[in-house]
Amino acid sequence: MDSTLAEFDLIERIRQRVASRGDVVLGIGDDAALLQVPAGMQLVVAMDTLNRGVHFPPETAPADIGWKALAVNLSDLAAMGALPAWCTLSLSLPDADAGFVDGFLDGFLALAAQHDVALVGGDTTRGPLSVCVAIHGFIEPGTALRRDGARVGDEVWISGTPGDAAGALAQWQAGGAIDPALRARLDRPTPRVSLGRALHGVATSCIDISDGLLADLGHVCKASAVGVLVDVGALPVSQALRNGFDADACRRLQATGGDDYELCFTAPAERHAAVIEAASAHVTVACIGRIVEGAGVSAVDAHGVAWRPAMAGYRHFD
Amino acid sequence: MDSTLAEFDLIERIRQRVASRGDVVLGIGDDAALLQVPAGMQLVVAMDTLNRGVHFPPETAPADIGWKALAVNLSDLAAMGALPAWCTLSLSLPDADAGFVDGFLDGFLALAAQHDVALVGGDTTRGPLSVCVAIHGFIEPGTALRRDGARVGDEVWISGTPGDAAGALAQWQAGGAIDPALRARLDRPTPRVSLGRALHGVATSCIDISDGLLADLGHVCKASAVGVLVDVGALPVSQALRNGFDADACRRLQATGGDDYELCFTAPAERHAAVIEAASAHVTVACIGRIVEGAGVSAVDAHGVAWRPAMAGYRHFD
Repeated sequence: MDSTLAEFDLIERIRQRVASRGDVVLGIGDDAALLQVPAGMQLVVAMDTLNRGVHFPPETAPADIGWKALAVNLSDLAAMGALPAWCTLSLSLPDADAGFVDGFLDGFLALAAQHDVALVGGDTTRGPLSVCVAIHGFIEPGTALRRDGARVGDEVWISGTPGDAAGALAQWQAGGAIDPALRARLDRPTPRVSLGRALHGVATSCIDISDGLLADLGHVCKASAVGVLVDVGALPVSQALRNGFDADACRRLQATGGDDYELCFTAPAERHAAVIEAASAHVTVACIGRIVEGAGVSAVDAHGVAWRPAMAGYRHFD
Repeated sequence: MDSTLAEFDLIERIRQRVASRGDVVLGIGDDAALLQVPAGMQLVVAMDTLNRGVHFPPETAPADIGWKALAVNLSDLAAMGALPAWCTLSLSLPDADAGFVDGFLDGFLALAAQHDVALVGGDTTRGPLSVCVAIHGFIEPGTALRRDGARVGDEVWISGTPGDAAGALAQWQAGGAIDPALRARLDRPTPRVSLGRALHGVATSCIDISDGLLADLGHVCKASAVGVLVDVGALPVSQALRNGFDADACRRLQATGGDDYELCFTAPAERHAAVIEAASAHVTVACIGRIVEGAGVSAVDAHGVAWRPAMAGYRHFD
């Protein structure tokens, strides 16, 4: 019964399933990977770790853990407007369970195939369940969607229907039934890679929503030395979120819940139609506020009344 | 008392201490880093994780953990003959203890400065103590020291005095005093980056010794479709190892102990003098065997008698 694997067998099991690309000179199996960045492109690198019980509920399916570990990294490339290319994976496992690894790869490699990402290296170690991914992509010099480009007067936009992942987490924490549509958004977030590419030359700044909309907008404000006024009444609400929570709870989950991996971006008001046009082939976007002079994040509700969240965005060490 | 930190404060604490480089277009503080690979160079990427209690004794000093986390990654670049450039760091901590983080950075950044490596991104998360590093470097196309280049008749070489790290670990496991010289080799391995660079055009294959000399040589044999005959009597023994162990134990630690991060490489016999010349400015090297037809690793002692280790190289999941 081949249910646990030696480390080298585990690496071989992974190696046999990965796809390659023409720009991978040498992939899994040596001390390091050799890669060819296309001429004229800059390299874009991000790295994010998921720990069991911190970043996903302990009973999460292995395939969903694999998907999410890559998705949160692809989301970082999306937020820069970069084109994904390669990744490395460090997998810490309490034991080398073949079934877990196969399931994990099902989810991880399915998303990798969608974005033509080659897994080129990494390691496997014994330890509490933890998944660290480093993602590599390309970008045309000078076109990155940075956090520091927001300007006073810019409109603020959000993709998709924020709050769904936080809604699933709230239902999980309450111990009751979890709406499958919300759970899918928590377990299998969609990295908005094609939207990020389409926003080149349109958006002035961009960030992905991992810590919560208001918290992440705070990072943009700080980097750009501006303030922002958000109309929380303008946030698009999914039917699943509306089914599960009253209006106040929806608003709170949408404004402060993390793990959505939607893109929040800014663009000059005169590009309003251009934003809608650029996004149209990819995902619905909504204008939810405006960049203002000053500092920090202010929110109003649909009636223009100041709105304060009852809880802050997720911070790992608070 | 600022002994624990919020996540953003932690990232800021790291950001303030890191050095940059001219080819870092955008470092810590956005969704991803933007980097410029020099024209004509290929990118070299490796990733290794250290977990507490698996890769270092639980009481290891934070500065030593920081040093080692970067060293094991630099060693992978060294084994390819690559020039280090950038790294990302994912730090999982049970709590955001400022003293730990400062100590960790002392060791990590000291080694980074030695090799002009810029820390350009990553993340900090809550979880059991774990350190994942992705390292990036450059190499001239076609010059990488791969595992698959060993040819029948090549001599096999090792740098330094293998077995010291395994000696420290054996003393730690025995619960007695640990020789400080051995402990230093376990906690603060020296990545042989300059040796790897010097071996361009001289060595035909190379690997770093992380799992144990014989186990790692097995990887070279498999990748190169050759066998190897190792003279374990030719392995250079440090005075500290000799002081702590009898001759048999020394041999076993040297042949099978991991964590040394010395380079083991092959070169045609006619380049014997060239190898010594290339290495002379960097570290002592010793010729310890020869590549032969066949498959797998055979070892003989100083009397030419077949030698078999009592224990195998370290495997995380055995």
